[in-house]
Amino acid sequence: MAKKKGVNIALVGQGFMGRTHSNAWGQVAKFFDPPRTPIMHTVFGQPQEQPQDFADNWGWLNASTDWKQLIASDEIDLVDIVTPNFMHAPVAEAAIAAGKNVSCEKPIAATLKGAREMAAAAKKAKVKTFVWYNYRRCPAVALAYKLVKQGKVGQIRHVRASYLQEWADDSVPLAWRFDKKLSGAGAHGDLNAHIIDMMRFVTGQEITEICGAIAKTFIKERQLMTGTVAGGIADGLKKSSKKGKVTVDDTVLFLARFSGGAVANFECARQATGNYNRNGFEINGTRGAIRFNFERMNELEYFDATAERTVQGWTTLMCTHAGDHPYLDAWWPDGHPIGYEHAFTNMAYDILRVLAGKKPVVPMPDFEDAYQTQRVLEAAMISAREKQAVKLSLVK
Amino acid sequence: MAKKKGVNIALVGQGFMGRTHSNAWGQVAKFFDPPRTPIMHTVFGQPQEQPQDFADNWGWLNASTDWKQLIASDEIDLVDIVTPNFMHAPVAEAAIAAGKNVSCEKPIAATLKGAREMAAAAKKAKVKTFVWYNYRRCPAVALAYKLVKQGKVGQIRHVRASYLQEWADDSVPLAWRFDKKLSGAGAHGDLNAHIIDMMRFVTGQEITEICGAIAKTFIKERQLMTGTVAGGIADGLKKSSKKGKVTVDDTVLFLARFSGGAVANFECARQATGNYNRNGFEINGTRGAIRFNFERMNELEYFDATAERTVQGWTTLMCTHAGDHPYLDAWWPDGHPIGYEHAFTNMAYDILRVLAGKKPVVPMPDFEDAYQTQRVLEAAMISAREKQAVKLSLVK
Amino acid sequence: MAKKKGVNIALVGQGFMGRTHSNAWGQVAKFFDPPRTPIMHTVFGQPQEQPQDFADNWGWLNASTDWKQLIASDEIDLVDIVTPNFMHAPVAEAAIAAGKNVSCEKPIAATLKGAREMAAAAKKAKVKTFVWYNYRRCPAVALAYKLVKQGKVGQIRHVRASYLQEWADDSVPLAWRFDKKLSGAGAHGDLNAHIIDMMRFVTGQEITEICGAIAKTFIKERQLMTGTVAGGIADGLKKSSKKGKVTVDDTVLFLARFSGGAVANFECARQATGNYNRNGFEINGTRGAIRFNFERMNELEYFDATAERTVQGWTTLMCTHAGDHPYLDAWWPDGHPIGYEHAFTNMAYDILRVLAGKKPVVPMPDFEDAYQTQRVLEAAMISAREKQAVKLSLVK
Amino acid sequence: MAKKKGVNIALVGQGFMGRTHSNAWGQVAKFFDPPRTPIMHTVFGQPQEQPQDFADNWGWLNASTDWKQLIASDEIDLVDIVTPNFMHAPVAEAAIAAGKNVSCEKPIAATLKGAREMAAAAKKAKVKTFVWYNYRRCPAVALAYKLVKQGKVGQIRHVRASYLQEWADDSVPLAWRFDKKLSGAGAHGDLNAHIIDMMRFVTGQEITEICGAIAKTFIKERQLMTGTVAGGIADGLKKSSKKGKVTVDDTVLFLARFSGGAVANFECARQATGNYNRNGFEINGTRGAIRFNFERMNELEYFDATAERTVQGWTTLMCTHAGDHPYLDAWWPDGHPIGYEHAFTNMAYDILRVLAGKKPVVPMPDFEDAYQTQRVLEAAMISAREKQAVKLSLVK
Repeated sequence: MAKKKGVNIALVGQGFMGRTHSNAWGQVAKFFDPPRTPIMHTVFGQPQEQPQDFADNWGWLNASTDWKQLIASDEIDLVDIVTPNFMHAPVAEAAIAAGKNVSCEKPIAATLKGAREMAAAAKKAKVKTFVWYNYRRCPAVALAYKLVKQGKVGQIRHVRASYLQEWADDSVPLAWRFDKKLSGAGAHGDLNAHIIDMMRFVTGQEITEICGAIAKTFIKERQLMTGTVAGGIADGLKKSSKKGKVTVDDTVLFLARFSGGAVANFECARQATGNYNRNGFEINGTRGAIRFNFERMNELEYFDATAERTVQGWTTLMCTHAGDHPYLDAWWPDGHPIGYEHAFTNMAYDILRVLAGKKPVVPMPDFEDAYQTQRVLEAAMISAREKQAVKLSLVK
Repeated sequence: MAKKKGVNIALVGQGFMGRTHSNAWGQVAKFFDPPRTPIMHTVFGQPQEQPQDFADNWGWLNASTDWKQLIASDEIDLVDIVTPNFMHAPVAEAAIAAGKNVSCEKPIAATLKGAREMAAAAKKAKVKTFVWYNYRRCPAVALAYKLVKQGKVGQIRHVRASYLQEWADDSVPLAWRFDKKLSGAGAHGDLNAHIIDMMRFVTGQEITEICGAIAKTFIKERQLMTGTVAGGIADGLKKSSKKGKVTVDDTVLFLARFSGGAVANFECARQATGNYNRNGFEINGTRGAIRFNFERMNELEYFDATAERTVQGWTTLMCTHAGDHPYLDAWWPDGHPIGYEHAFTNMAYDILRVLAGKKPVVPMPDFEDAYQTQRVLEAAMISAREKQAVKLSLVK
Repeated sequence: MAKKKGVNIALVGQGFMGRTHSNAWGQVAKFFDPPRTPIMHTVFGQPQEQPQDFADNWGWLNASTDWKQLIASDEIDLVDIVTPNFMHAPVAEAAIAAGKNVSCEKPIAATLKGAREMAAAAKKAKVKTFVWYNYRRCPAVALAYKLVKQGKVGQIRHVRASYLQEWADDSVPLAWRFDKKLSGAGAHGDLNAHIIDMMRFVTGQEITEICGAIAKTFIKERQLMTGTVAGGIADGLKKSSKKGKVTVDDTVLFLARFSGGAVANFECARQATGNYNRNGFEINGTRGAIRFNFERMNELEYFDATAERTVQGWTTLMCTHAGDHPYLDAWWPDGHPIGYEHAFTNMAYDILRVLAGKKPVVPMPDFEDAYQTQRVLEAAMISAREKQAVKLSLVK
Repeated sequence: MAKKKGVNIALVGQGFMGRTHSNAWGQVAKFFDPPRTPIMHTVFGQPQEQPQDFADNWGWLNASTDWKQLIASDEIDLVDIVTPNFMHAPVAEAAIAAGKNVSCEKPIAATLKGAREMAAAAKKAKVKTFVWYNYRRCPAVALAYKLVKQGKVGQIRHVRASYLQEWADDSVPLAWRFDKKLSGAGAHGDLNAHIIDMMRFVTGQEITEICGAIAKTFIKERQLMTGTVAGGIADGLKKSSKKGKVTVDDTVLFLARFSGGAVANFECARQATGNYNRNGFEINGTRGAIRFNFERMNELEYFDATAERTVQGWTTLMCTHAGDHPYLDAWWPDGHPIGYEHAFTNMAYDILRVLAGKKPVVPMPDFEDAYQTQRVLEAAMISAREKQAVKLSLVK
C-alpha cells in the first residue's frame, strides 16, 4: 500500500473543543480511509494548562506554550483553533499570514468586523479555511441536506430552528461564556450560530430579513471566580463570594425570511428547563417535511407528502445505513448508534479530503461562509435592540 | 331524584362547529351529572341548509330559519353561536339585547372593535357569556393549567406555542375561510386565536408586547366556488373555473413578552406539511416544564426540575386518571383515550355549572376575556404590517 | 327522505359495557348514515341496578327487570348482551331460541363447551350473531387488517401481541372479575381474548399450536365485598374485613404458531406497572411490518421494507384521514383524535349494515368465529397446566 | 504524575469485534483515568487477514500470525479473544493454561460442555476472566441495574426481553453465522445470549425454568461463498452459485420463570423486519417499571408507581448526566449522546479496574457467570426440541 501524504496539525487551545478535535484527529484514520494522513504534531496550551499532559493523553507528538512560534513553524500544515472566541481572530490571522490552512471553531470571531476581516485575509492569502460547524456532519443533518437537495421537501415554506439548553441556572458562576469580552456573545453566538449555519446549509438558502427579535438575560449577576482567566481558561478556578455582571444574553429569539420565500423562527436558550441539548429543526415544503432533534441524533424524521395518503405520515429514519446514509460506511452496522463526537471525526475526514483536492461528503463552511452566518447573528441583535425589522442587505 | 332545572338552548348555525356543539349538548348529561339539564330546544339554519334534517339527526327538538325570532323567544335561555365569524357580533348583540346568556365560537368578532363592543354589551346587560376556546378543556391542557398554578413549573421563562395544519394546499378552493369579509381573519384568527387563549390560560399571564411578526399568504389566488355563500355556508358548493383573490393570511408568526417576564414565540400555519392538527406548546420555568401536542391529546409531558437528577426527565402523563385529572371522572377507565369532541362536552358541562352559579372546573373565557385575546391578535397584525415592536397597552 | 327500517334493540345488562353500548347505539346514527335505524327499545337491569335511571340517562325508551320476558317480546329484533360472562350463554341461548339476532360481549362463554354450543345454536337457528371484539373497529387496527390483506406486510413471520394493564394491585377487592364462577376466566379471558381475536383478524390466519404457556396469580387473596352479587353486579358494594381466594389468573403468557408459518408470543397482565391499557401488537413480514398500541389508538406504525432504503423507517400513520382510513368519514377532520368509545360506535354501524344485508367495513366476528378464539384460550390454559405444547386440532 | 503499571494485551482475532475491542483499548485511557495503562501489544490474525495492516490501523504495536506462540509469550498479561465462537474455547484454555487473564467475546463456547470446562479451568488456574457482554455497560442498562438494586422497581413480576434484527433476508449468503460448526448457534447464541445475560444482570435473579420454546429457521438454504473460511473469516469471500444448508436457527422464543417469582418472555430474531438492532426489555415490579431499546441507547424509560398519581407516567431518562449516571463522567456534557462502541470502552475501563484489584462500576461477567447464561440457552433449546417445560436445575 503506497504511503499517503501526511498533514501536520497544530492544535491551538485545549478545553472541551480541544478534546473533541483531538479525538477526531485520532480516530479519523482508524474508521475512514482519508486521502491524507493526519499527523497530530503539536498542541498549544498556556503553561498552567499543562499542555504536555494534554499531549500525552490525546496522542499529540509535541506540546508548546508559544502559539506564535508554533504557527510560524515550517512543519505545520494546518492550524486548528479551539481557543475561546476572542482569540480566534488573532490566531487565525497569524496562521493565514504564515500561509497555513486554518480550521477554526465557531463563531469565527467575536465581532462581525473580525469575521469579515478573517474571510478577506483568507481569500487574499488563498489558504484553505474550515469552520467547525460540526452539526452539518451529524449524519441525520447531512441526510436532511441531501433530501432537500433531491427535491424531496419541495419548495420550502416554513423553517423552525431552536437550540435549547438548560445548564445555566443561578448556581453557575461567571465563567468566560458569560463575559462578552471573552466570548464575544452569549447563547446567540454559542447556539444560534449553529442553527443559523445548519439552516443555511440544509435549505441551501440565505436569510434576507430579520422580522423581529428578542434578546434577554434572565440572570443578570453571577458569582465571580477567582484566579486569572488567561486565554479564557476557566478550568480549575474557584467561585468567589462576590458577584459580577453577566454581559451577554441568555436567550435570543428572532423571526426571519429566507431567499426562497420561507418564513422562519429561530431561538436559543440556556435556561429552557428540560432541554439538555435540544438542537433541532423542522422544515415544511410543498412536497414533504423533515425534522431533527440532536438528543436523538441518529434519527431524522421525514414526511413524504407525495406518498399514498393511506400510509402517509412521519417516518423515523435511523440514519445508520452504510451505503445509503452519509458517513455511515465508516462506522457500525445498521441500528448501532453513533455519538456526539462522531460528527467531528466526520468533519476531520472532510477536511482531509479538501486538503487533498477532493470534494467533501457535504458542503464545508469556510471563513467566507461563516461570515455570512455572522451577518445574520449581527442583524438579529440589531433587530432586538432597535425593535424593528432589519434587512440583511444593510448589514455588512 | 329531584328534577333539575333545565336550560333551553338555541343553536345558531350548523356546519362543523354546529355538529361538535350538538354532540356536546347531547352527550353532557349522559356522562356528567350537570346541575342544570340541557334542553336542545331549537337549531337555526338557512333554508338551504335544511335545519330540520340537522335537528332530526342531532336531537334538536325544533328547527328554525329565523334567527332573530328564535333569539327573541321567551323559551330560550342560552344562545349558542356557531355561525361564520362575521355573523358572531350581530347574533350575539341581539341575544344580549334580549337578555339571553350567550356562548359563542371563537374568535368572537371579525374586528377588535366588534369584540370590544360585544364585551361591553355583555357587561352592561349582566348576562353570562362563554367563548368556545375548547382546548382549555382538553384534560391535558386543563392539567397544564393546574400544574402551573400549583407552582410545578416555577417562574415561567419561555413559552412556545404553535398551531400547525396542512390542509390548505393549492387544490383547496376559495372557501369562506379564505375570504376576509366572511372570516374576519385567516390562520391568525382561526388558529393563533386558540393558542393565544391557551397560553394566557395556562400561564395565567397577559402578553405585554409583540416584538416582531410576519404574516404571509403563500397561495394568493384560489379557484372560486359557484353558488351563493349566504351565511358563509360552503357545503355543497362546486369549484368554478375562475380564480379569486385570497384576502387572508396563511401563516402568522410573532414574538412576544409575557407580564411575568417570559419570552415567547407563536406561530400558526395552514401549509405546514406533515402537521394535520398540531396545536401545541412548550413552557419552561425555573422548577419544571410542560409540553403538549393535540395530535396526542390524551398526553401531557412534564419535566420536574426538582426531582432527583438520576431519574429526571420528561414524563408522559396519560391524562386519563379519574380522580386525578380534570374531567376524567366522567369518562372511561385509565388508559382509554378520549377524542376531539370530548373537550366540547367538558365545556358544555362547565357552562351548565356556571349557569347554576357554580365554579367551572377550570376558568372559563367570557367575552371580556376573549376581547383580551383579540387585542393580542390585533397587535400582532400591526407589528407585521409596521415591521416593528408593538406594546399591547397601545392596542384597545 | 324515505324512512329507513328500524331495529329494536334490547340491552341485557348495564355496567361498564352497558354504558359503552348505550353510547354506541345513541351515537351511531348521528355520525354515520346506517342502512337501518337503531331504536333503543329497552334496557334490562336487576331491580337494585335501577334500570329506569339507566334508561333515562342513556336514552333507552323502556326499562325492564325481567330479561326472559324482554327477550321473548315480539318487539325486539336484536338482543345485545353485556352481562357478566357467566350469564352470556343463558341469555344468548334464550335469545337464539326466540329467533332473535344477538350481539354479545366477549368472551362469549365462560367455558369452551358453552361457546361451542352457542355457535351451534346460532348456526342452527340461522340468526345473525355478533361479538363485541371492539378493537377490530379501532380505525388503526382496521387499517392494519387492510394493509396485511393488500400484501403490504408480505408473508408474516413474527407476531407479538400483549394486553397489559396495571389496575389490579393488592388494594383492589375481590370483585367479580377475580371469581371464576362469575367471570369464567381472569386476565386470560378478559384480555388475551381480545388480542387472540385481534391477531386472527389482522393476520387472517389461525393459530395451530400452543408451544408453551404460563398462567400465574400474583395476588392469591383479596378483600371480600359485602352484599349480594346478583347478576355479577359489583357496583355499590363495600369491602369487608375478610379475605377470599382469587380463583383466576393475573397473567397468562403463551407461545404459538400460526397457520401461515409465523411464530408468536402473547401476553396479558393486570399488574404490569406502567401500562394502563396497553393493548398492542407488532407483526413483521417479508415486505413490511406494523405495530400498534391502544394507548395511542389513533396511530398505526408501518414499516415499508420495499421503500428506498435511504428513507426507510417506521412511519406513524395518524389514522384520521376521511376517505383513506376505515370509519373516518363519519368522524372529524384530519388530525382530530377519536377516543375509546368510537370503536363501539363503528361496530354498531357495522351491525346495522349486516342486519341490512350489507358487508361490514371490515370482517365481523360471529359466535362461530368467537368460538375459534375460545379454542385458543382453552389450548393455552391446557399448555400452562400440562407444561407442554398443545396442537389446536386436539382442542374442540 | 507517577507512572501507572501497564497491562500488555494480546488481541486474538480481528473482524467486527476486533475493531470494537481495538477501539476500546485505544480510547479508554483518553477518556477515563484507569488504574492500569492498557498497552496494545500484539494482534493476531490469519496470514490472509493481513494482521500487520490491522495493527497499523488500530495502533497495535505488533502483529502475529501464530496465536499459540503469542499467548505463551511472557510479555502478555491479558488475552482478549474475538475469534468466531468455535475458537473461543481452545484459545481461552491455552491462555488459562499459560496463566493469563482472559477476556472473551460471548457466548464463551459453542457448547454448554465447553463453557463449563472453561469456567472450571479458569477457577482452577485462579486467573481473572471477563466476558464481553457489552450491553451491561451501556449507561442506560447500567442505570437500570442500579434502579432495580435501589428498590425503585420493587418486587419484579414481569420481564420481557427481545433482541430483534432484520438483516438476514434471502439475499444474505451462507456466512459463518449460519453454520453451526463455526458459530455454535444461530440467533439464539448471538442475540438471546445478550438478553439472557442482560436480564440476569438487571434483575439480579436467575432463571429457574423454561416454560416452552420455539426455535425456527425461516430460510433453510443460502448461497455458498467460495474460498476457505479459515478461522471463520468471511471478509473478502464471494458468493457461489450453489446453495448450502443453514444449520442454525433464525429465531428463538421462550417463556421463563425467574427465581424471584417473575414470569418472562424472551425472543430473538434475524428477520424481524423494521428492527435494525432492537435489543430491548421491559420490567414491571410492585413499585415501578423500566424499559429500554438499544436503538435509543442513551435513554432509559422509568415509571415510578410511588409518585403522586397526577404526575405519574413514563419518564424518559437521558442517561448523560455526569455524576448521576454510570460511566458518564468520562464522556460529554449533558444531552450529548454516546454511541455503540462506548459500552466497549466502558468495559475496557472496568477490566482495567478489576486487574488493579478494584471493583468495576457495575458487576462484570466472568466465565462462571457466562456459563450460567449458557445453561439458560441450552435449556431453551431442549424445551423447543422436547416441546415441554424444562427446569434449569436439570441442565448442567
